[in-house]
Amino acid sequence: MSRKTLNPENVPELEAIARQSSADIVTMTTLAASGHPGGSMSTIDILLYIYATANVSPAWKPDRDYVVISNGHVSPAVYCTLAANGFFNRKDAISQFRLAGSIFEGHVEPDVPGVEWASGNLGQGLSAACGFALASRMKKIDNHIYVIMGDGEQQKGQISEARRFAVKYKLNNITAIVDWNKLQIGGNIADVMPQNIQAGYEADGWHVVECDGHNFQSIEATMQEAASIDKPTVVMARTVMGKGVSFMENKAAYHGAPLKPDMLAEALKELEQPNLLEKYKVARSAFVSGKKQCEKPDRLIMNTGKPRTYDSKTDNRSAWGNALVDIADANACPIAVFDCDLAGSVKVNEFAEKHPEGFFQGGIMEHNTAVVAAAMSKAGILSWFADFGVFGVSETYNQHRLSDINKTNLKLITTHVGLDVGEDGKTHQCIDYLGVMRNLYNFNVIVPADPNQTDRIIRYIAKTPGNFLVPMGRSKLECICQPDGNSFFGDGYNFEFGKADLLREGSDAALFVMGTLAGRAVEISDSLAESGISLQVWNASCPEELNCETIRKAAATGLILTYEDHNIRTGLGSIVGEKIAETGLSVRFKISGVEDYAFSGN
Amino acid sequence: MSRKTLNPENVPELEAIARQSSADIVTMTTLAASGHPGGSMSTIDILLYIYATANVSPAWKPDRDYVVISNGHVSPAVYCTLAANGFFNRKDAISQFRLAGSIFEGHVEPDVPGVEWASGNLGQGLSAACGFALASRMKKIDNHIYVIMGDGEQQKGQISEARRFAVKYKLNNITAIVDWNKLQIGGNIADVMPQNIQAGYEADGWHVVECDGHNFQSIEATMQEAASIDKPTVVMARTVMGKGVSFMENKAAYHGAPLKPDMLAEALKELEQPNLLEKYKVARSAFVSGKKQCEKPDRLIMNTGKPRTYDSKTDNRSAWGNALVDIADANACPIAVFDCDLAGSVKVNEFAEKHPEGFFQGGIMEHNTAVVAAAMSKAGILSWFADFGVFGVSETYNQHRLSDINKTNLKLITTHVGLDVGEDGKTHQCIDYLGVMRNLYNFNVIVPADPNQTDRIIRYIAKTPGNFLVPMGRSKLECICQPDGNSFFGDGYNFEFGKADLLREGSDAALFVMGTLAGRAVEISDSLAESGISLQVWNASCPEELNCETIRKAAATGLILTYEDHNIRTGLGSIVGEKIAETGLSVRFKISGVEDYAFSGN
Repeated sequence: MSRKTLNPENVPELEAIARQSSADIVTMTTLAASGHPGGSMSTIDILLYIYATANVSPAWKPDRDYVVISNGHVSPAVYCTLAANGFFNRKDAISQFRLAGSIFEGHVEPDVPGVEWASGNLGQGLSAACGFALASRMKKIDNHIYVIMGDGEQQKGQISEARRFAVKYKLNNITAIVDWNKLQIGGNIADVMPQNIQAGYEADGWHVVECDGHNFQSIEATMQEAASIDKPTVVMARTVMGKGVSFMENKAAYHGAPLKPDMLAEALKELEQPNLLEKYKVARSAFVSGKKQCEKPDRLIMNTGKPRTYDSKTDNRSAWGNALVDIADANACPIAVFDCDLAGSVKVNEFAEKHPEGFFQGGIMEHNTAVVAAAMSKAGILSWFADFGVFGVSETYNQHRLSDINKTNLKLITTHVGLDVGEDGKTHQCIDYLGVMRNLYNFNVIVPADPNQTDRIIRYIAKTPGNFLVPMGRSKLECICQPDGNSFFGDGYNFEFGKADLLREGSDAALFVMGTLAGRAVEISDSLAESGISLQVWNASCPEELNCETIRKAAATGLILTYEDHNIRTGLGSIVGEKIAETGLSVRFKISGVEDYAFSGN
Repeated sequence: MSRKTLNPENVPELEAIARQSSADIVTMTTLAASGHPGGSMSTIDILLYIYATANVSPAWKPDRDYVVISNGHVSPAVYCTLAANGFFNRKDAISQFRLAGSIFEGHVEPDVPGVEWASGNLGQGLSAACGFALASRMKKIDNHIYVIMGDGEQQKGQISEARRFAVKYKLNNITAIVDWNKLQIGGNIADVMPQNIQAGYEADGWHVVECDGHNFQSIEATMQEAASIDKPTVVMARTVMGKGVSFMENKAAYHGAPLKPDMLAEALKELEQPNLLEKYKVARSAFVSGKKQCEKPDRLIMNTGKPRTYDSKTDNRSAWGNALVDIADANACPIAVFDCDLAGSVKVNEFAEKHPEGFFQGGIMEHNTAVVAAAMSKAGILSWFADFGVFGVSETYNQHRLSDINKTNLKLITTHVGLDVGEDGKTHQCIDYLGVMRNLYNFNVIVPADPNQTDRIIRYIAKTPGNFLVPMGRSKLECICQPDGNSFFGDGYNFEFGKADLLREGSDAALFVMGTLAGRAVEISDSLAESGISLQVWNASCPEELNCETIRKAAATGLILTYEDHNIRTGLGSIVGEKIAETGLSVRFKISGVEDYAFSGN
């Protein structure tokens, strides 16, 4: 891996930009009356160095280096650096910082040109860097991945997971830089939470170097060393919070508090930069929010292969595993599948055997794996994460929340959801998959009713951009048939996102179900029909998308029922109830579902 | 700290119990046709040793040692050990293993006598041990805390957080034992996820020792060393998966798979134990589920002090901080408050100054802190965890889920919820606090409307057992008044769990709100009244508890509205909608709330 070197002749220019950037940092935070000047000033030299030497530019390059900002609150420094490198107008960033409607938010987010990954929750950036490194490798791109982290942030456990993942997969093109200013909100990190950061990295097999984070030539020397070593490397960059302004230096209070205008004037004098606060105030008040910019992910064109139709009993899990192999077989481009030590149960073992180059074993490190997979999905790789429901949803909800904000394209497959997990007991009952994931605006939940529908749904999400969760139970299921005995979701069926499936017509009552209970509902309807009771059955495979028309048809029976292997408070019944109220219809309504953690048993 | 030593004369007896226990492990897993025999057999000697020397007994002792099982899937070994120590009948545990309605679930849970902490999700047990150790110290109990973990489990990042917490707080009475059989589901841990476990513990300041985990005298020697060292200690216990049965030894396949009956017969022959499978089958089929046992937490009787009534504008956060100090001042028993480096913002700094012995700074390690606080709440300490919404709810949902299963008594206070977080931007917008926590059966969400109601709610939850979340925004709020100008939640008001507050009578429409928007709704109602429009206003401080009577009264206006600073899909509107449908009433219904991640701004 070759990389640019810093030309010593350019150092004075960088130092001048750094001084101006420090002035801009204090100005924009004072202007917004909020923000994080201290860490921005301690990290600005590192950022300017990286952008001076990395292969990044405002023009979109598929073979670019990645720069991940894990401590998103240093956004003022990031905006100054990107502006200095031509990504956008410097004055816009200063005047619009933390202004509603502008892209220059308090924590970096991906609508800002040049920002690869939103952060704000700490501890996830190194995992995202792993995802970008793996994606680059799969695309045979010889690049470098930089990730900037805070020193307080090193307390987060997920970082240790990411370290091990990086070493296992020899992601030696990752260089992590820790902004080692030794302060966090509560004071000295040594008091808040003592930690030997270097020993932790070394224990996990990383190369550790130190530099003066305010000396460009010292940074250069360690970065060259990092690039020459066959290990992931962390650079401990000794820095000073509030660097450059005497009364701000080494003061934890400036982590998250701006200067008052009079102190700003003092600071700018020390930095020998003009005080343009009033000028920026005018620009700020003149700001009109336009349409926000949005990065376009690499658009994948996937061949989804020929659907399989099942006629004998099998589990949805196997149908997913088979469809996955079909899709991988049908495409020349690489596909990534992530597992957390459950490959056999989540049915990715056949894929792993046939396509080992695309199979990644993340170990019992779900937090890291969720982020690696999601970051990869943003870098032009079709990326799947398969896990048990409790690990892939309940345990990793917050990782998915950040990925959701990052507009990733993750395909999340969870098995063993509902009480259908069987004998494993309470901790393994994922009865919140819909109730939890409904909170994410850009994550669609599609619950397959049987193996045939599973097959069609997997092929659908493979070719459709966006985040999807497909939850499935553990049991083997009969394939659902039409009243005439033909398969309902077999040949001739085409999955249509959002559409509820009318499994049985009926006039006495309407029953809504999803997932593993759909087949049972059909059996009940068929059996009631023999007693002259006519039960309408709807499969809500996209429960969040139920429309008024469906509800009206169901309400015409006079009685709507819901039945779910999910927490009764937060799932299908809750959604159907709200939709009934929204239609303003008067109809009897009764919900059934899981009312408490259940026993462990068959 | 004194501890019992192992009498060498007792070793043959322990070895005999171990052999019988191994037979019981293979028998009960074959009987249930599921479960985890391999790790149970590798860990049984360690467990038997601990129970032979620890201060534990079936009779409840407040000064007992704690034994935490972090890898809950070794439940067969735990049940055998507890039965051997008189906690319950051995034959019941064998015959009822993984049988619906029995307490002997697939993963250990706290309805089993002797089990201190449910686990199943890995990586949380060491944090629970820290909680029990801290609680014991606050109660001036000189005891020992043992925590058993798997080796694959060491991959979880939360363990590194717990290690640092234990060292910071000098929890030297914790001994962690790693069942080091070197296998996980996917095979050798060195292949699945290479890790130098010892180096990780050493990097975080732990003492590390090794022993032969199948030799009682070797275990004894390291345990004595652990007890004599002034550091938390981890014992790396070299073990053999499937120990004692030649064809099971060192086979990862037996991690989670039982023997077939013919192989069971072979195994029992090798173990020189009788084959009682058929006898236990009879007992199993005769099992009738009775009322489940339930541990009683130490019941706290708290003095909640004299309520404060505010009449000028302040933030709910400050009202919470003041009430906390009042409660701490009013009680002789210790109170614990946990912070994750946000003490000033979450308003626990005054408590920290006045009651430093009860203030615990958990650093930027929310996962660990959530569990430490919850475990402590189960050990007879009034325990509070205060954090921003995104960290205290979204980031730590799964920790709370496990605490919920553990029937803890955690008081969770989150500030900066809703878009009211201000300029911090998307990642910091906790607009899912109700949508996420509604999924937990034993966690009550109470949303205060103003500083006065905050004061009453904090005092209410301080004296009420159970888990509570009290979310509050960041802004300063006017105190809500009755139409006559008197404070609504001030003197004379008594918080009643579940009751909605009718803030304004009205006949043209009814509006449901919660939290920071309640005051604004009252202003709107008062302003509309001037134009002759009569708007009924309800404050749903316990949104999950809204009853039909309230809904009926609101519906009588002909139009129900909801308005919330929360995700529109999963919060108050969703609950009110479902309740309307349940009543079967026909009423116009319109919800308003947060429809997407919002801007960063004022």
